[in-house]
Amino acid sequence: MTPSQASKERLKLARSLQLKKARKKEGLFIVEGAKNVLELLDSDYDLEMIFVSEKFLDKFHTSLSAANTEIFVTKIADLERIGSFKTNNSAVAVAQTKPNEPFDIGDGEWILALDEVRDPGNLGTIMRIADWYGFEKLLLSPTCADFYNPKVINSSMGSFARINWYQSDLLSFLAGKSSNKYGAVMKGENLHEVDFPPGGILFMGNESIGLNEELQVAMDHNITIPKFGRAESLNVASATAVICDAIRRTQV
Amino acid sequence: MTPSQASKERLKLARSLQLKKARKKEGLFIVEGAKNVLELLDSDYDLEMIFVSEKFLDKFHTSLSAANTEIFVTKIADLERIGSFKTNNSAVAVAQTKPNEPFDIGDGEWILALDEVRDPGNLGTIMRIADWYGFEKLLLSPTCADFYNPKVINSSMGSFARINWYQSDLLSFLAGKSSNKYGAVMKGENLHEVDFPPGGILFMGNESIGLNEELQVAMDHNITIPKFGRAESLNVASATAVICDAIRRTQV
Repeated sequence: MTPSQASKERLKLARSLQLKKARKKEGLFIVEGAKNVLELLDSDYDLEMIFVSEKFLDKFHTSLSAANTEIFVTKIADLERIGSFKTNNSAVAVAQTKPNEPFDIGDGEWILALDEVRDPGNLGTIMRIADWYGFEKLLLSPTCADFYNPKVINSSMGSFARINWYQSDLLSFLAGKSSNKYGAVMKGENLHEVDFPPGGILFMGNESIGLNEELQVAMDHNITIPKFGRAESLNVASATAVICDAIRRTQV
Repeated sequence: MTPSQASKERLKLARSLQLKKARKKEGLFIVEGAKNVLELLDSDYDLEMIFVSEKFLDKFHTSLSAANTEIFVTKIADLERIGSFKTNNSAVAVAQTKPNEPFDIGDGEWILALDEVRDPGNLGTIMRIADWYGFEKLLLSPTCADFYNPKVINSSMGSFARINWYQSDLLSFLAGKSSNKYGAVMKGENLHEVDFPPGGILFMGNESIGLNEELQVAMDHNITIPKFGRAESLNVASATAVICDAIRRTQV
């Protein structure tokens, strides 16, 4: 593709995607910064267009040429205007959102389910954790932050491009599934004494109220990270990291 | 203390404490929101003044009366103006910063050292993790975010009030100390195979570059969280939580 200058309409469209309403209407979302954009190019997402600085174009000419999309050489001020980064001297990509389609859970596979994780930064950080620990599928309650929120994408540090997600009422999704269900709660079995099976679903709850009662009852095990100090709780992303590590630790 | 109305000067002083320069000049910092303010009242920090909503005053009259400080009944719009919270219908307190004084490390005590953790949200989240895992002392390099930054205080969820900190060049602090030093790095001993001693110092590095070379060389052990998926790295707070958990796990 031959790089060209972006029209005002294109820039305006990209900028509008900060808002969920526009993302939903257009079926598009934005990805900002060198790392995230490069991970996007390497993924199975369909691209709509990419805005790049001259420097980024020079440096990643080969990857960009291979991408089947329109490329616009863009002033840095415009890159910063259409995205949410204070400074961005590399790129902003616009990609197509994926349809919300259920996934299967393989034998011996661990996946992550989030109930009402509302903070976009937490959701993105949790995706990065899931991606580190090889949890490739993410089940999201309808009350979670929007997967395509720019803050989610940014804090995932590229992991969004590798995570398969499905948004659904969690209990409906569970119906008829025999997976081992583990919920993170404040008063449950001591995490350090749990032997995890080869596969299952780890449920993490809301930032303030934790996992709701109805879900706790539906779990096979409710587990708790033991406390050695005085803080009231751990942040949901920190807790997810600790439990994912514990799951992988007992399996090797 | 009898509650009164705050003068414009008081409100202006409190508001100025969003900036490091003002915090340093006045020797004061602000604490926002019900949870953080209540933890502050329960701590050994000296209070300068508290701005409270009528509702907060009614609800926590006893705790507030016991606090040896001026109490100002304040409109919610003013609480939001002097603090960084979008909504705050409870309180903003102004407290005295503590002098930067070195601490001793007890036998069988674990402490945490941070090198160049620049993001205030990460620093606050790490304090919450340290407080959960009973790491009561925090050594900070001069390049870390300011301990009294409102974003640090807020994301610590009250743990700031229980953490003892000292800011110093890390290598100078280590000189002559026999503590076991463990650094978190990208290519070190497998965390899951490390037997931690009863006490030591855990070093965590910068968000982008990790622990610097000079510090790595000064460590007794460099350790790595094993990766099971494809993310390039974990967020520094997530990594801290996983390693603190591993340290406590091998000690019980």
